[in-house]
Amino acid sequence: MMTHYSFGVSGNLVKFPYREIYYHTLLLEPFLQVPDIQIMASSILRRFLPRKTTWMYGQRMMSSTIDVSVDEQTGIALMRMKRKPVNSLNLEFLQDIRNTIVTLEQNKKCKGLILTSDVPKIFSAGIDILEMYQPNEERLNSFWRALQDMWLQLYMTPLATIAAINGHSPAGGCLISISCDYRIMAPNYTIGLNETLLGIVAPFWFKDAMCNTVGHREAEIALALGKLYSTEEALQKGLVDEVVTSEQIMEAAQKKMLEYVKIPNMARAMSKQLMRQETADKLRSTQDSDVQNFVNFCLQDKVQQSLGFYLEQLKKRKSK
Amino acid sequence: MMTHYSFGVSGNLVKFPYREIYYHTLLLEPFLQVPDIQIMASSILRRFLPRKTTWMYGQRMMSSTIDVSVDEQTGIALMRMKRKPVNSLNLEFLQDIRNTIVTLEQNKKCKGLILTSDVPKIFSAGIDILEMYQPNEERLNSFWRALQDMWLQLYMTPLATIAAINGHSPAGGCLISISCDYRIMAPNYTIGLNETLLGIVAPFWFKDAMCNTVGHREAEIALALGKLYSTEEALQKGLVDEVVTSEQIMEAAQKKMLEYVKIPNMARAMSKQLMRQETADKLRSTQDSDVQNFVNFCLQDKVQQSLGFYLEQLKKRKSK
Amino acid sequence: MMTHYSFGVSGNLVKFPYREIYYHTLLLEPFLQVPDIQIMASSILRRFLPRKTTWMYGQRMMSSTIDVSVDEQTGIALMRMKRKPVNSLNLEFLQDIRNTIVTLEQNKKCKGLILTSDVPKIFSAGIDILEMYQPNEERLNSFWRALQDMWLQLYMTPLATIAAINGHSPAGGCLISISCDYRIMAPNYTIGLNETLLGIVAPFWFKDAMCNTVGHREAEIALALGKLYSTEEALQKGLVDEVVTSEQIMEAAQKKMLEYVKIPNMARAMSKQLMRQETADKLRSTQDSDVQNFVNFCLQDKVQQSLGFYLEQLKKRKSK
Repeated sequence: MMTHYSFGVSGNLVKFPYREIYYHTLLLEPFLQVPDIQIMASSILRRFLPRKTTWMYGQRMMSSTIDVSVDEQTGIALMRMKRKPVNSLNLEFLQDIRNTIVTLEQNKKCKGLILTSDVPKIFSAGIDILEMYQPNEERLNSFWRALQDMWLQLYMTPLATIAAINGHSPAGGCLISISCDYRIMAPNYTIGLNETLLGIVAPFWFKDAMCNTVGHREAEIALALGKLYSTEEALQKGLVDEVVTSEQIMEAAQKKMLEYVKIPNMARAMSKQLMRQETADKLRSTQDSDVQNFVNFCLQDKVQQSLGFYLEQLKKRKSK
Repeated sequence: MMTHYSFGVSGNLVKFPYREIYYHTLLLEPFLQVPDIQIMASSILRRFLPRKTTWMYGQRMMSSTIDVSVDEQTGIALMRMKRKPVNSLNLEFLQDIRNTIVTLEQNKKCKGLILTSDVPKIFSAGIDILEMYQPNEERLNSFWRALQDMWLQLYMTPLATIAAINGHSPAGGCLISISCDYRIMAPNYTIGLNETLLGIVAPFWFKDAMCNTVGHREAEIALALGKLYSTEEALQKGLVDEVVTSEQIMEAAQKKMLEYVKIPNMARAMSKQLMRQETADKLRSTQDSDVQNFVNFCLQDKVQQSLGFYLEQLKKRKSK
Repeated sequence: MMTHYSFGVSGNLVKFPYREIYYHTLLLEPFLQVPDIQIMASSILRRFLPRKTTWMYGQRMMSSTIDVSVDEQTGIALMRMKRKPVNSLNLEFLQDIRNTIVTLEQNKKCKGLILTSDVPKIFSAGIDILEMYQPNEERLNSFWRALQDMWLQLYMTPLATIAAINGHSPAGGCLISISCDYRIMAPNYTIGLNETLLGIVAPFWFKDAMCNTVGHREAEIALALGKLYSTEEALQKGLVDEVVTSEQIMEAAQKKMLEYVKIPNMARAMSKQLMRQETADKLRSTQDSDVQNFVNFCLQDKVQQSLGFYLEQLKKRKSK
């Protein structure tokens, strides 16, 4: 028996969809040198030109951003992110992800959760930079709090979690991946905390999750250089645990998840808590000041100018 | 010149030896699928059937559980655990191990300690689950305190320590191994913190010692899945440092120990303290509450039922 | 355009140059079994026999201990240590290194710093043990404080830092290396925290920097055994990041540094701070007591006797 949940975005969220497109291009920048990604990126731009705004706006309203199904026989849930075009993490999407996890935790038949993307070639492009540009301060507060809360929920969930990384996974996409219990990645994509490439710095809890995954030394290189690891490098450095083709990734994730869910549930969940408590508590004990730091950072003229400059550049690039 | 110490168990300890047999089988469960281990396990069962209780009980009284010899020329002590059939760690055995270490520390001619098993195919099966089943609360307290104290003594001893792992080494057996300075393991055995497989969770200090050995990421996998590593996997993940055959293991341990004891003694001991102090202090500062947590955990009806259920199953299995 | 700085030692520092030679030999002891190093060591001894004292003393006065050049086009500074014969770290040299870094940080055109040695076959032999022998207590205080301050400056500098390790790098030489952002090493040299071989213990912040580089487990082995890793072992264990020949090392360092300096500067520097703050703060919060511990350690009769014994041995060895 399969149960379906559906979490839609609240729709009134994206006031300036054209800006979002620029942002997606911005975050995709590192990939733009790869020819087939360039084609994809420009086709994204073509699809979402301003004249299609209303249509896109409408589509968002009607579509959901997350598909969830639970196989109650195996106890395995599957969550597919489908916030087009690149699963960028805005306030509502973050809330939706968190609510999905909370709901699944309350389902006594559910023991494990596989996260994957329903969007081609992108797992998640990370946080939605438009939340940071010319922001409403109150919403900016809520946005960062939602990111924290999503992370705490995912990182500490008693559910066994596996990321089936079937596309690029920069920045916040990498955070989601490394917060799962296990990572399987398809070839020819990239993953990493590439924040420095955009002139920003990963929050300390991104860093902590990265250290817990690849160790202090590799995390240092990763963050300093904003390194985007190829699938093969990611496997070699322990940033992902397994590599299989996109076609086989769901099967591999199911197979590995069966290993997790056959372990006595409470003991497995408590072991996870034991391993991660300290890292989670570091954020929990400073959540308010972390929000304030982020808001203060964003509201700096220099940062706004910098974000504006990027968006402007991308607008120009587009109009060529 | 060789000095011999002998530490015997206090004998009046094992009131229900037949239960202990079940427990050994319980902890050996993961190995029971390996044919030659099955043979060994059933031969253990045959040897210790109830009709032989008195004999076994008597043998225990007369035999010692630990053999210790010190080569005063090299400064190397050898400690062989021989609490048959599987070196399971009960209150008195834990006290004996600790006392052995304390005594050797006081021997000015002793600089290094090699730990190994005198029992075939088992290094140590870990803590004696019978200490947890239908316990006397006071003894349960003492048991956990003895486990803590043994660990603190072994983990922090100024002696250089090498585990010559000449048999399976699950749970507490793994703890003893990873608390040494160096690990050499014979092929075709397994090692790991497999507590979750039994529905229980490793204490935080087992986890800390594991993290210090294989890093946070591998420890996370190890604990969540209760993973028992083959000798080869253990080497690959850094859970052990060297693999040699059972025949060569003592020679290899002696050879490596000579490297340790030739280092100026005080400096080597202080370096070890420097590396491990923080981890030991985490337990030292919460030793009482850690005992209380464990006792409360054991005294839960659910836990007792669960332990009883396991023991019952094993009784049935035996009677077939 | 290239700018040159020059930092000279204050000259009146080396009162007993002949003793320094013994010390160098002392620290080089581990290498003395390698034939070509033996030749080098004895040629050092021959060059600096007492009769040449004045000349050497004069040479020191006139020469500088550090050469620094900044390529303002690339933003890359090159610092060559040339405190002959083995770049041992005494009070003034430590101050010079720190001052060099501070000055470069203030140069807005400078983003990255490559550290290398101008002395053949030695990167740095580590701290100058003569600072510890029959010391003036006040100077001993200043010396250790200078070592702390140099380390904090180097470890936390916003500059990207690469060690081009073109010679042996024991003890304090290893500390300098592991405090950089990246390490490139030439073949056939050694690197490691070999303090225990001399009967002393690395300070906790050496240990912390080592853990951050190779992880807890390898650091434990490294410190306990005072292990000097060959270039190849160092690469394998992650103690260095890259191996190229001495001839190619500067080119490789320049090439890697271009990767670092092209990252938005502030973001890269803040990422570094994020990764290293906690480790630096551990020393910062105990700097005074760390000085006091070191001074108390040095002033012990036993330690002075031990240092004296070593120096005496070396004097005898020389006179043979």
